[in-house]
Amino acid sequence: MPKAIRDLILSLERLPGIGPKSASRLVFYLLNTPEAYVNDLATAFLRIKKEVKICSECFSVSEGEKCNICRDGKRDKSIICVVERPIDVMAIESVGGYQGVYHVLGGVLNPLEHVGPEELKISELLNRIKSSEVAEIILAMNLTMEGEATALYINKKIEESGKKTKVSRIGSGLPMGADLEFADRGTLSRAMDGRRGI
Amino acid sequence: MPKAIRDLILSLERLPGIGPKSASRLVFYLLNTPEAYVNDLATAFLRIKKEVKICSECFSVSEGEKCNICRDGKRDKSIICVVERPIDVMAIESVGGYQGVYHVLGGVLNPLEHVGPEELKISELLNRIKSSEVAEIILAMNLTMEGEATALYINKKIEESGKKTKVSRIGSGLPMGADLEFADRGTLSRAMDGRRGI
Repeated sequence: MPKAIRDLILSLERLPGIGPKSASRLVFYLLNTPEAYVNDLATAFLRIKKEVKICSECFSVSEGEKCNICRDGKRDKSIICVVERPIDVMAIESVGGYQGVYHVLGGVLNPLEHVGPEELKISELLNRIKSSEVAEIILAMNLTMEGEATALYINKKIEESGKKTKVSRIGSGLPMGADLEFADRGTLSRAMDGRRGI
Repeated sequence: MPKAIRDLILSLERLPGIGPKSASRLVFYLLNTPEAYVNDLATAFLRIKKEVKICSECFSVSEGEKCNICRDGKRDKSIICVVERPIDVMAIESVGGYQGVYHVLGGVLNPLEHVGPEELKISELLNRIKSSEVAEIILAMNLTMEGEATALYINKKIEESGKKTKVSRIGSGLPMGADLEFADRGTLSRAMDGRRGI
């Protein structure tokens, strides 16, 4: 097999969710596509490293010093939705409807992987709350053990700061389309606790 | 979202097996990897278009005018395994054990997609059979309707050419580890017809 093919397969295999079989399928697909597309793809890869910056306010991805959402005068700066990663901002934005701003922590507390509060943008969040009129914090970390622990930690820190900011956790329960019969105990118990009037 | 991210997501979505969700997951993964890796990846993409050629004998991928397998003096040139695509050569080579050479058709007959015999390397195969001592042709096209039809067509063409070359079709039946109970009718009937003494 030509070395160029082998090298590209090896590079692609290192990506998440791409195994040896899908890597070679991709490479042989690309061999049959016009050179212009492959050139565009290579350029697009290089551009994300050159053009993507981190917003100095919310730490999400940005084109300039501040991201589009932080610069948008129509967004409600008094509501901050705290998420783990920039991809979570994208997920919430793609749903539409949320009018507040974001704060990207850059991960969650994870003692096993040596991620403590200093590794995350937690003090930056507390500074934002301190220095401006924030009415509500929505903690939208993933519903994992680490996400829950991080939510509790941040809530405690906000309480300790003495600010009377309303802190809420993103709703949990059964996902849309789910079947009670197959729901796990944790989800079901959350769904019962989180029941709402109709 | 920064335009560089959006552009890369759109480019990646065009690849087979990559949907919008896995495309954005890949992009955000790459944002957190060292720039050197992303540069290597981009270079690897460009190299497959520049360095990969088509072998003038078997039409598989090659680094030079002829591929490694055709140039290898130890391979048995009297056995030709006919496959649809270069990736099939890779699949058979990865198993090991096959000592013959290959012939890549570049696809299969598919009237609905306007792929006729002229679009495939069929006349080139007949020329190879005519001009050298070929003892056996193994038709290893996929076990699809089109693969079967292409196998029948090539077999007829070889018969018409008057050459007494042995032509065989790759074995079909139950895959290893399969359960009779769940096999489809076509596979089961092939498995019964293709029974072998032990």
